[in-house]
Amino acid sequence: MITLTAEQHKIIDVAFKRFTKFGHEKTTMAQIAEDLGYSRTFLYYYFPDKESILKGAITSRIEKYFQALEKSLKPGMNGFKKVETMLKVKCTCTKDFQALGVYTNMELFKIIVNNPDSDLKQVFQKELKYLTSYISEGVKDGSVRKTDPAKTAKLIIDGLAGYSSITLRRLGYQGKLTARDQENVGKHQLEYATFLLNGLKK
Amino acid sequence: MITLTAEQHKIIDVAFKRFTKFGHEKTTMAQIAEDLGYSRTFLYYYFPDKESILKGAITSRIEKYFQALEKSLKPGMNGFKKVETMLKVKCTCTKDFQALGVYTNMELFKIIVNNPDSDLKQVFQKELKYLTSYISEGVKDGSVRKTDPAKTAKLIIDGLAGYSSITLRRLGYQGKLTARDQENVGKHQLEYATFLLNGLKK
Repeated sequence: MITLTAEQHKIIDVAFKRFTKFGHEKTTMAQIAEDLGYSRTFLYYYFPDKESILKGAITSRIEKYFQALEKSLKPGMNGFKKVETMLKVKCTCTKDFQALGVYTNMELFKIIVNNPDSDLKQVFQKELKYLTSYISEGVKDGSVRKTDPAKTAKLIIDGLAGYSSITLRRLGYQGKLTARDQENVGKHQLEYATFLLNGLKK
Repeated sequence: MITLTAEQHKIIDVAFKRFTKFGHEKTTMAQIAEDLGYSRTFLYYYFPDKESILKGAITSRIEKYFQALEKSLKPGMNGFKKVETMLKVKCTCTKDFQALGVYTNMELFKIIVNNPDSDLKQVFQKELKYLTSYISEGVKDGSVRKTDPAKTAKLIIDGLAGYSSITLRRLGYQGKLTARDQENVGKHQLEYATFLLNGLKK
């Protein structure tokens, strides 16, 4: 698992803005260093390359999502309510993920899913684990229809990712994202999540 | 709308095999002509370029899907049952669509969704129209939960396409497809369709 220092977080936040605006491919280490007012050598001291900054940015955004989730889960919620909360929180984080190319960058996708040792893969598997456990609780407490929790969690996560990816492409997203596109993707994703939730409800 | 002659169908069927095996990008008009035992000039008489053969191939596969659907729909089925039948028939056609790159080829995706005058777009909109009408019937006859039929049909079609695209990429599909991948994608897609259907049932 990636653990980030305060200095690394600072670098990530600055790099994030550039990734969002120009895309990860068009960003260079030299530009990130310049934005920070650092020398390149100084930047390389914290991150070996651009990919590790991008991975760090994704990790930090997912951690934000997990923190928001933790804050939104209230005691006494049944399994279904927990699943619903998780998907809704996820949709509020869509903007950050899509800004980093999680839904459209195929190179990134390969890093995430095809490399079993990848730090990122572990982060995404943590999400899968959470969702599986909430579905499992729901099946036990009777709020979720009888289903295989792990399999269903995977269907939901892949389904949402796939839907977001299609929606972004439909909106004509080619690496640059207007504020309106951002609004639309989040809105569409939430609609889709709501539809998926209907399939889980008992 | 594309209307194909018998000779064009013959060309498409031969080209289809090559697209499936080597991918659309790596196929040339010269190779298709050779497979057919035609001169290139003769082939150009029927199709102006490779893209039009590919479009023809997709159109013919979608027509096959619509024909299979028509055969599977039985009198007296309620709206939900019609939707279910449509999605199941669609999943049996997955192999053909994925062989043509419908779920993974981004250039193709652009042709399909971003060009309002595209013949292909019309074919896909026919699918959307069918699904919308079955959902609408279901809402009326009480077999489908109250929902906006057109919106829901779009969610389902985009959701299935997105899921298939993610699943193909997860299986490491890079333009070439093993028999095992084909089996797996069809299976996964059917599981996902079943999950989506749960969300529609009343």
